[in-house]
Amino acid sequence: MTRRPVLEMDATRRALADLFAPIRDELAEAERIFRRELESRFPFVQQLVDHCGDYRGKRLRPALLLLSGRACGAVTGAHPVLAAVVEMIHTATLVHDDILDESMVRRHAATVNAEWGNETAVLLGDYMFTHAFHLAASLETTQACRWIGRATNRVCEGEMQQVHHRGNLDLGEDGYFAIIDGKTAELTAVSCRLGAHYAGADADTSEALDRYGRNLGIAFQIADDVLDLWGDERATGKSLGTDLEKQKLTLPLIHLLAHAKPAATAAARRLLERARPECRRELVPLLEEAGSLDYAWQRARGHVREAIAALDGLPDSEAVAALRVLAELSARRSS
Amino acid sequence: MTRRPVLEMDATRRALADLFAPIRDELAEAERIFRRELESRFPFVQQLVDHCGDYRGKRLRPALLLLSGRACGAVTGAHPVLAAVVEMIHTATLVHDDILDESMVRRHAATVNAEWGNETAVLLGDYMFTHAFHLAASLETTQACRWIGRATNRVCEGEMQQVHHRGNLDLGEDGYFAIIDGKTAELTAVSCRLGAHYAGADADTSEALDRYGRNLGIAFQIADDVLDLWGDERATGKSLGTDLEKQKLTLPLIHLLAHAKPAATAAARRLLERARPECRRELVPLLEEAGSLDYAWQRARGHVREAIAALDGLPDSEAVAALRVLAELSARRSS
Repeated sequence: MTRRPVLEMDATRRALADLFAPIRDELAEAERIFRRELESRFPFVQQLVDHCGDYRGKRLRPALLLLSGRACGAVTGAHPVLAAVVEMIHTATLVHDDILDESMVRRHAATVNAEWGNETAVLLGDYMFTHAFHLAASLETTQACRWIGRATNRVCEGEMQQVHHRGNLDLGEDGYFAIIDGKTAELTAVSCRLGAHYAGADADTSEALDRYGRNLGIAFQIADDVLDLWGDERATGKSLGTDLEKQKLTLPLIHLLAHAKPAATAAARRLLERARPECRRELVPLLEEAGSLDYAWQRARGHVREAIAALDGLPDSEAVAALRVLAELSARRSS
Repeated sequence: MTRRPVLEMDATRRALADLFAPIRDELAEAERIFRRELESRFPFVQQLVDHCGDYRGKRLRPALLLLSGRACGAVTGAHPVLAAVVEMIHTATLVHDDILDESMVRRHAATVNAEWGNETAVLLGDYMFTHAFHLAASLETTQACRWIGRATNRVCEGEMQQVHHRGNLDLGEDGYFAIIDGKTAELTAVSCRLGAHYAGADADTSEALDRYGRNLGIAFQIADDVLDLWGDERATGKSLGTDLEKQKLTLPLIHLLAHAKPAATAAARRLLERARPECRRELVPLLEEAGSLDYAWQRARGHVREAIAALDGLPDSEAVAALRVLAELSARRSS
């Protein structure tokens, strides 16, 4: 495995812009709905909302929702609304995650907790969660509210499990996958499911899109966890090594502790017990020697394949092709 | 004005039990729904949920919702569901408020942040918020989701304004009332509105119940703010003086700074700048001398009268009588 160059991030961004071309108008409409829903008559609240607008990322979840819709039938007026909803929930979880991780920087900007304190970050996240539900309730039926409610419940459970297992160096793969299935894959899964359902897909097809989104989310999270050990802070624009600092055991570390030689395992445990982000420099050679980074990438690739297989029943289209490429990119990103 | 005895709390509790007698079955059903909705397959999550069940309070919001329904027509199957929803949102805001206030004790038990840390408290609050919306979405239409979404947005805005104005010793009455109208009165207002609407009330009657709940909430919050300066920690079962510690200007303090003699104003400003909970012992004599505590109680009483006046159009019933007494109690409580 070779280190991927920093510039690959820009290449990925350009690739995403091309992939999102068929849904560009709907993405722009989702963006307008997002901003309009969060508008506040209080200048302080508006300032906070604007700040978060600046550090939002690749718009992956809205794009998944809209492409899933396009892949399954007609994109309707509900789609940009729902795309704004899932992006708002994602942004709320980012704002709260940065409190949990004590992160100072996200997307090259100060986090809300770093700039205005934890209290404001707690409330801004709540504000976004409640606006997301308010917006979802503007649709005709309660279907979206129900699915989004259930998915966000599971996101929170996954995150609570993660906090609970901090410092648990005996966490196994099952525990790890239960956590990331909740905290990351639920939201990508429900995004795809909603896109399909609101385009008129039948239950089986909606289920297949859910499976696509879930596997993509798992692959994406494994890649993110690898990046936290192995990425470049300048390229990613965020604090790295936070999983080590917070003693969160991720897939490569779980593999290392289970499969390395005794001396390497003992060294890794000592490094993990120090709970310092800079330990990643000493851990990476151990991870590479034990094949743990390769193992994590292989597992991620397995989920990419499952995601792509879930699209098998769909008729060929530009949207389906884009979903395939997105799955490929989820485990090949450098940011 | 004389100090009310500690035992009054028990008297208030007994009075509430009597008032809630006509809706006892529905309150019990709401309680079952509350617990069932929050059940988790993860023991850690379940433990947290159970802990919060122990420090929940007087069930004021569910009772307001159910009594409003009874006062306006028939209580339906939707009522206990919605009663559980508003209690869940209230509990979520308590869990997050305790992080903001760095409170260690609530209802004689350790707060979630004190026992398990801020991170867990952030996530548990989120878990309750998202379950509340999930539960609201189990009803037939999106009406409840929309109203609850809008109300919780305003709760968050009010709280953010409050954080923003911490340390602002020039906050005026308008600013104070904008904050408490959001952070407290929105949820009592929407509780009453939902109760009325789901019992078949017309728009004007739902609006009147909203006004009742809003004024009750404002009176309740003024009383709570007075209590923070003037209560007994053993009786209330929570940390007091937190408004001083967090430099939140409340109605009596705003009155004191605007109306006391120059020497007393200067002394009060110095005490407020120290931001220590124990300063309440030195502030209370100043507040009493300037008539600020009496002023705050008078303002609270004004809102009690407005709340009761909002019930004028309703036919006499046990429920309406209970709502009147609840309004009276909102500004006469010692816990």
